[in-house]
Amino acid sequence: MASGGNGEELTVRNKQVLAKDYITGNPRESDMYLTTTTTKLKLPAEEEEAAVLVKNLYLSCDPYMRGVKNPEPGRPQFFAPNAPIVGYGVGKVVDSRHPEFKAGDLVWGITSWEEYSVIKRTESLFKIHHTDVPLSYYTGILGMPGLTAYVGLYEICKPKAGEKVFISSAFGAVGQLVGQLAKLMGCYVVGSAGSDDKVEILKNKLGFDEAFNYKSHRDLDAALKRYFPQGIDIYFENVGGKMLDAVLLNMRDHGRIAVCGMISQYDLHESEAVRNLMQLVLKRIRMEGFTVLENYHLYSSFLDTVLPYIRLGKIAYVEHIVQGLDNGPAALVDLFTGLNVGKTLLVVAPHDD
Amino acid sequence: MASGGNGEELTVRNKQVLAKDYITGNPRESDMYLTTTTTKLKLPAEEEEAAVLVKNLYLSCDPYMRGVKNPEPGRPQFFAPNAPIVGYGVGKVVDSRHPEFKAGDLVWGITSWEEYSVIKRTESLFKIHHTDVPLSYYTGILGMPGLTAYVGLYEICKPKAGEKVFISSAFGAVGQLVGQLAKLMGCYVVGSAGSDDKVEILKNKLGFDEAFNYKSHRDLDAALKRYFPQGIDIYFENVGGKMLDAVLLNMRDHGRIAVCGMISQYDLHESEAVRNLMQLVLKRIRMEGFTVLENYHLYSSFLDTVLPYIRLGKIAYVEHIVQGLDNGPAALVDLFTGLNVGKTLLVVAPHDD
Repeated sequence: MASGGNGEELTVRNKQVLAKDYITGNPRESDMYLTTTTTKLKLPAEEEEAAVLVKNLYLSCDPYMRGVKNPEPGRPQFFAPNAPIVGYGVGKVVDSRHPEFKAGDLVWGITSWEEYSVIKRTESLFKIHHTDVPLSYYTGILGMPGLTAYVGLYEICKPKAGEKVFISSAFGAVGQLVGQLAKLMGCYVVGSAGSDDKVEILKNKLGFDEAFNYKSHRDLDAALKRYFPQGIDIYFENVGGKMLDAVLLNMRDHGRIAVCGMISQYDLHESEAVRNLMQLVLKRIRMEGFTVLENYHLYSSFLDTVLPYIRLGKIAYVEHIVQGLDNGPAALVDLFTGLNVGKTLLVVAPHDD
Repeated sequence: MASGGNGEELTVRNKQVLAKDYITGNPRESDMYLTTTTTKLKLPAEEEEAAVLVKNLYLSCDPYMRGVKNPEPGRPQFFAPNAPIVGYGVGKVVDSRHPEFKAGDLVWGITSWEEYSVIKRTESLFKIHHTDVPLSYYTGILGMPGLTAYVGLYEICKPKAGEKVFISSAFGAVGQLVGQLAKLMGCYVVGSAGSDDKVEILKNKLGFDEAFNYKSHRDLDAALKRYFPQGIDIYFENVGGKMLDAVLLNMRDHGRIAVCGMISQYDLHESEAVRNLMQLVLKRIRMEGFTVLENYHLYSSFLDTVLPYIRLGKIAYVEHIVQGLDNGPAALVDLFTGLNVGKTLLVVAPHDD
């Protein structure tokens, strides 16, 4: 081996969070386990692929992190038996055989839940050029959730000033930014969330016109009618089920629904019924699913839009920061029970420079 | 009055089909009744509106013909208590106070179920310029259903050659044309219908690649997998409910669903559950409702596309022709039980020139 007699010096402990198996429904803590292995801090010389070795600094907990047998080609497999959990994160390059990355570079993209990762899928790895904002933001508002908000709002919904926008799961990693971007465009913005604390922050810190705790409303249709007496032009859909059905009744003509996710449905054996789809015809509504995976080409225009707002203090972002890989499984589980307050991320190692 | 002493000569009997009340669910024969009144064959001189008096020749039976209290502004009210049923039809102008129409003109548009109608909503009245094709076609393939097919397929679905297209209620007034237009674009086209007879005509007369009787398949998902082993790119939705749920499971990435109607749902107290909407995200599907009401401006480009195909015999159209206003209520009811075979229309009077 190239490292020869220095091999021992380059070997370090590598703590990992692994999945026991694929997951049906939401992940539980018992679906994951911790282990410690070792890794060499140099990529093998015979490595043919343009791989990058990364020291993970922050890892992102996201609601799509689940695993199915036979995923579609091209889709990341987040949970697989006895493999480290795969997810988005921020790291520092330790060694690289890829021409675009060099040791010391800060990057964000798809990595694994461990201290050190060899990343071979470099098509979803981005170099971080702007470090005057919190580095952890690249797991959230400046990373995949941020780009998701941008694509869903601008590309799918195409809002106009004065339009009425509703966002479910509005305090999540994506919803926070959707609402603030829509406000900056001159829209009227209402969000729903799962606790009174979140509602307060949406209204008082993030500048939403209104927000409500969906758990306090048995009749979601009536709640929406109160906040949208003239109806909803744009719905940013994160939850599905009953909420979607109530929203459909309150959409306006030519409304648009960006379907980002349906977190309320992931743990159900059978998804909740949606019965009001005839509204799509009556009101000529467009409803469109999207993911960030095929919109990476918009990342630089996204940064051009959002970075100035962050620097000027016109956009805020609330993070739920959990310390240490050991607390990763619990942090991920809390995401599905709504115990997190803001974008959940895991600190793996301090960023030392 | 302007007609003076000739008034009596100008008065004729006017048979009408009236609704008893608004309708919930599908219409029944007992919801309608016949009566005969009289009408003058000249519009009153003091008439201020630019009205047109029409002798109705053909009337169209369409699945959206129902009536609700407080319809949205701008939408036709098809059923209202003790008023003639409102629907599309073909007629001949008897008298006109509208500068664009004169006596003798053939027209199609929104009229009423009676022998003679005074039409004031002339914004949805079109002059018929091409009479080398059957005049009855202007209730169907060359009228509102035809324009609906055109808008849904070209404007909403934007098909490409080689794409896989599925049409439910494929033998209806709209579906017949959607399938043939998609075939002419080089698509693979499959339709579902409610009887083996309809299936045979779809395959043998209308040139669909495949067709199936949905009533013979308990497992619609399995049926769709058989006809679309690689999945569906475009779904032209006319029925809703279970079929939509099965289709969602079989859509391909970036699929498009044009939502034209949901006939299977109209008579249900509560619409059937749709549970597979998460597929919208997984496959980045666009699902869009539309109606013809705001697409009339496309009528001339629609004619330019479809008329040549009809003249060349490249597009066929099957009509279910019912004689006489007296048989109108039964014809409308049969539409919802699927007893019609092809586009249903009513002959009110023979076209004598």
